[in-house]
Amino acid sequence: MPMIIHFSHSQLQSLPILSRAVAGCSNHNSVGEIAARETLEQVMADALSKCGSKRSSVRAVCLAVSGVNHPTDQQRILSWLRDIFPSNVRLYVQNDAVAALASGTIGKLHGCVLIAGTGTIAYGFTEDGREARAAGAGPVLGDWGSGYGISAQALTAVIEAHDGRGPSTMLTSSILQTLGLSSAEELIGWTYADPSWARIAALVPVVVSCAEAGDEVANKILLKSAQELASSVKAVVGRLGLCGQDEKGAFPLVMVGGVLEANTKWDVGKEVIKCISKYFPRVLPIRPKVEPAVGAAWLAWNFFMKEYNKELCSR
Amino acid sequence: MPMIIHFSHSQLQSLPILSRAVAGCSNHNSVGEIAARETLEQVMADALSKCGSKRSSVRAVCLAVSGVNHPTDQQRILSWLRDIFPSNVRLYVQNDAVAALASGTIGKLHGCVLIAGTGTIAYGFTEDGREARAAGAGPVLGDWGSGYGISAQALTAVIEAHDGRGPSTMLTSSILQTLGLSSAEELIGWTYADPSWARIAALVPVVVSCAEAGDEVANKILLKSAQELASSVKAVVGRLGLCGQDEKGAFPLVMVGGVLEANTKWDVGKEVIKCISKYFPRVLPIRPKVEPAVGAAWLAWNFFMKEYNKELCSR
Repeated sequence: MPMIIHFSHSQLQSLPILSRAVAGCSNHNSVGEIAARETLEQVMADALSKCGSKRSSVRAVCLAVSGVNHPTDQQRILSWLRDIFPSNVRLYVQNDAVAALASGTIGKLHGCVLIAGTGTIAYGFTEDGREARAAGAGPVLGDWGSGYGISAQALTAVIEAHDGRGPSTMLTSSILQTLGLSSAEELIGWTYADPSWARIAALVPVVVSCAEAGDEVANKILLKSAQELASSVKAVVGRLGLCGQDEKGAFPLVMVGGVLEANTKWDVGKEVIKCISKYFPRVLPIRPKVEPAVGAAWLAWNFFMKEYNKELCSR
Repeated sequence: MPMIIHFSHSQLQSLPILSRAVAGCSNHNSVGEIAARETLEQVMADALSKCGSKRSSVRAVCLAVSGVNHPTDQQRILSWLRDIFPSNVRLYVQNDAVAALASGTIGKLHGCVLIAGTGTIAYGFTEDGREARAAGAGPVLGDWGSGYGISAQALTAVIEAHDGRGPSTMLTSSILQTLGLSSAEELIGWTYADPSWARIAALVPVVVSCAEAGDEVANKILLKSAQELASSVKAVVGRLGLCGQDEKGAFPLVMVGGVLEANTKWDVGKEVIKCISKYFPRVLPIRPKVEPAVGAAWLAWNFFMKEYNKELCSR
């Protein structure tokens, strides 16, 4: 969701958000390039129209979207933006994880962000601008700590229990009841009917409540997923040397997404921090108070000011 | 692929196949009901036309197709067939695994079949007609021993190695070279571009050759997959009591599909039998010499003769 924010230095903390617009999926990998572009164009036009602004009054755009996995993705989206905005507008394209990091660090690109919603990714930056990521490769490529991953493991456990390949579990009755199905076999048709990951990931609260009620199978799935998420963070922090040679330095870890939200008893986010603390005792977990789109706006401001100051100095 | 076979008792061993026709996917779960029905109608028409026969000369049809997971699937396909064939034709609809079993037992529904191609399923019958299945629920629901499952684990291992979450592996260079890609990140776009399971399952030979060359990651994936496949067979055999109270009885295990085909060194089928033998020492592995479609034709003949004899007796 793009935000139109008009920043002045003193306003940075009070967030002068002029408008806000929401749209559907803009990951070109999922919905195709044409639909992704249309969605992005439309939602930016909506945001401008809601605050009565025009493209000509825009100074900088930071588009932080999922599906930016490779420099060619970035270049393609930049060229779309170039077609839309006047040539003096500064344009920045980032993976959505970068905006999520910025939402927890007031726009500073330093530290690591862990997102676990429908999908999952860990993304990190050093103060001197090096970056690294882990996971975020989609369900086929093993994002097991994601909401999709957790739910798919729970559905698999139901099938295994039904087959006699795995222990019986409370997940069976809870999931079938949630989906309005009467037998485990019906899950096969249910998953084939609509392979949308978000639809499957929506079962995470059922898994959490089964684990909270003491179900061992659900408990193991959440523990394993927390370890998977921690291992993504560990890989990023290790590659970047984010906490120094001795691995004892402090670094911010921004945590975003439905899977990491606090639950009554079984808190996946807390478990992830517990796993990470074993390796990096001085991790500083941050649950952002603003949404990732605000992070993107902060990034646009910071990138813009950096370039602007450079130009001033070179005059 | 349907076969038109004209049986007489004495000919049963010499397989009087009159014609053979091949078509694309007819799993209604994957391609939708309309496309599945069109594919089946067309390929049956092709098989009849190739041997110069008409629908009116057909006595029995056994359609053994994937996607038959529930009695409602069977009923729906039976009603399609009813619209096509004259009312005196005997019609039988089965999961494709049943025909695969029959292809190894000359049409007798007794024992267990394990299929591991793009997907996987274990299916078994007792002599008194009880049946049970395990797995065969698709990739979301954990068919990890399938060709898709093996390849998805290998792709995940490449991403994990790239991220620093897993050990480096020969799979990286072998898979990237096979797919004509230059970096692990490009796998993300590659998997999103076409989520067809068969396209991913086609990487199994790469995994096998890496394991044969001594790669530990590939080796572990194949071992784990063999254990998964064995656990499906174990579940079916156990539920049906196929080898008696003491689990020491003999039972046929028909093995079908690309994953179970013999390889030079690393033979997944052999490893599966090794795992199963630990539980059921008198398992009798059978690798059928005829294709599953011949099993379906044998089934049609057996079902037809059973009903025909019943009618003769009741006259």
